[in-house]
Amino acid sequence: MQHITNMEGDNMEDRILMAHGSGGKLAKQLTEEVFLPVFDNPLLGPLEDAAVFHSPGGKLALTTDSYVVKPLFFPGGDIGRLAVAGTVNDLAVSGAVPLYLSVGFILEEGLPINILKKVAASMARTAGEAGVKIITGDTKVVEKGMADGMYINTAGVGLIPQGQGELGARRVRPGDRIILSGSIGQHGVAILAAREGLDLSPAVLSDVTPLNKMLEDLLKEAPGVRAMRDPTRGGLATTLNEWAVTAGVTIRIKEEKLAILPQVHGVCELFGFDPLYLANEGKAVIALPPEEVPAALELLQRHAQGREAAVIGEVTGERPGTVILETKVGGERIVDMLTGEQLPRIC
Amino acid sequence: MQHITNMEGDNMEDRILMAHGSGGKLAKQLTEEVFLPVFDNPLLGPLEDAAVFHSPGGKLALTTDSYVVKPLFFPGGDIGRLAVAGTVNDLAVSGAVPLYLSVGFILEEGLPINILKKVAASMARTAGEAGVKIITGDTKVVEKGMADGMYINTAGVGLIPQGQGELGARRVRPGDRIILSGSIGQHGVAILAAREGLDLSPAVLSDVTPLNKMLEDLLKEAPGVRAMRDPTRGGLATTLNEWAVTAGVTIRIKEEKLAILPQVHGVCELFGFDPLYLANEGKAVIALPPEEVPAALELLQRHAQGREAAVIGEVTGERPGTVILETKVGGERIVDMLTGEQLPRIC
Repeated sequence: MQHITNMEGDNMEDRILMAHGSGGKLAKQLTEEVFLPVFDNPLLGPLEDAAVFHSPGGKLALTTDSYVVKPLFFPGGDIGRLAVAGTVNDLAVSGAVPLYLSVGFILEEGLPINILKKVAASMARTAGEAGVKIITGDTKVVEKGMADGMYINTAGVGLIPQGQGELGARRVRPGDRIILSGSIGQHGVAILAAREGLDLSPAVLSDVTPLNKMLEDLLKEAPGVRAMRDPTRGGLATTLNEWAVTAGVTIRIKEEKLAILPQVHGVCELFGFDPLYLANEGKAVIALPPEEVPAALELLQRHAQGREAAVIGEVTGERPGTVILETKVGGERIVDMLTGEQLPRIC
Repeated sequence: MQHITNMEGDNMEDRILMAHGSGGKLAKQLTEEVFLPVFDNPLLGPLEDAAVFHSPGGKLALTTDSYVVKPLFFPGGDIGRLAVAGTVNDLAVSGAVPLYLSVGFILEEGLPINILKKVAASMARTAGEAGVKIITGDTKVVEKGMADGMYINTAGVGLIPQGQGELGARRVRPGDRIILSGSIGQHGVAILAAREGLDLSPAVLSDVTPLNKMLEDLLKEAPGVRAMRDPTRGGLATTLNEWAVTAGVTIRIKEEKLAILPQVHGVCELFGFDPLYLANEGKAVIALPPEEVPAALELLQRHAQGREAAVIGEVTGERPGTVILETKVGGERIVDMLTGEQLPRIC
């Protein structure tokens, strides 16, 4: 057990032990001292095997994601903020109002409990921003060397408002416009900078943020929206390719319309990355009919997260299943799906 | 990358690569070739960021658990069966009819894809037994050495039937009887046997099984049930202690009423374990008023999983927060909550 004693001058009691995952006394203590103080709410309180909530009836959405981001803390965010915002955004782009989250922690033996406390506090803050409640959870512990600090799974339940039409890639059709809610690549570059010790000036912060309030408002202003996605793993290129293939359409985007920070461009050139494939954690791509574009843009630009929203392209029909980038110099190139791995463990 | 080539004479293409977690082409291929063939259902089909389902309105239950069991396959089950049955049972003991599951895989680079296929098939079979659907999922990949083959998270949504009263530890009161649905300790011993290479004769199989159908029937026959739990991590002793503390009651159980296989007894003596603390994955503990005991026992014993159901004790009030075991020789001992860790990573 030497690896959990006094590694950094701190006390063995301040680190996660295998017994914290036992279901016994230490597990109870962890729940009471780390999780309940930050997540406390009336539904979580009873600590039964499941949390019970009221549903008004109608359509609900269920989603899940596990988070294995490395490092746990990065410029602009941390694994906890990511785990809440990511799952909230998956519900929001599905047209659902996110309501409740579950959280499952997999902790590595020896993890400082202070790290866990910081992550839990960040989850609670982000849940507060998004207006969702964490109502049930689970903690497992694996031996030193069997995880990388911690992994988090969140699942989320959301309510699809009555009258909200179906959203989805299948509904995208020629003539639709493509709106992107802001600049791309910050999350991927923030992770890379943290990992490689890059000293960017100014620093690039991850864009990780819950988008649900903006997207709820958007659907009221532009009820004809066909599909929305948050372009995380695989980036904008992957999202657009999935739409093009599923809907059997061409998606044409204009390079000059894409907002990309100069530092993001710089890092991409240095590492041979393409910003189209870099992960974003606070952006939405939206396909909608042209007549709804003005109202949608105006609404998005009123929100902090959508200030740079712009139409970046349109849907056509000439080459089904294809994404085409019109370059600044007037050329065209096909933007394929990501093959291989550009930057692993970004979420 | 040498560690993923030809480790066991097989092909690098047959193993999980980091790129399977990229969100790109290989991730898509994994979904289409491994998950969709076994989990396919109309709600999962669209593969959007969230799955949409209809809810009749009323009370719903949400639960989650991550599964880190070691080894992945053990006598009587595997991590996939555990991940479905465990979450189904958490819903069932909360009085909910389990409906939908999400699944999140964390895979270790180099994992043979055939192992993943076997686990996914086992999940699909167990979901079929329980009558639940896996409607949304996620896959992440971490580097070799950053996980132990695979970890699985499942979250589950269930519907609490109209008119079903609240269940929970807070409702347990003096005079109630405690029913246990069968023998204890098999899951823990099956894991230990697999890990230590014990050659038990006859073999002890894990009891991992979905209990939802039996428990749904039970609540119809015995609507006055106060609380139910599946005594997994920490075993029967931990469940009863949680009830005793939460309800402020004494729980007295009789050693002679506990069903324990002779091989389970033998392994416990050999390793210094107490079967009261060993994990079960297919048992329910039920607190109910005495007048409902006959109907409840008759119902439970009609089900394969409840054939050995018996009253093992009762609730009294003399020492709030305490569990007392009346031994076979006529003595009494206090059964405390688990301190430390008896057997890690059993679920």
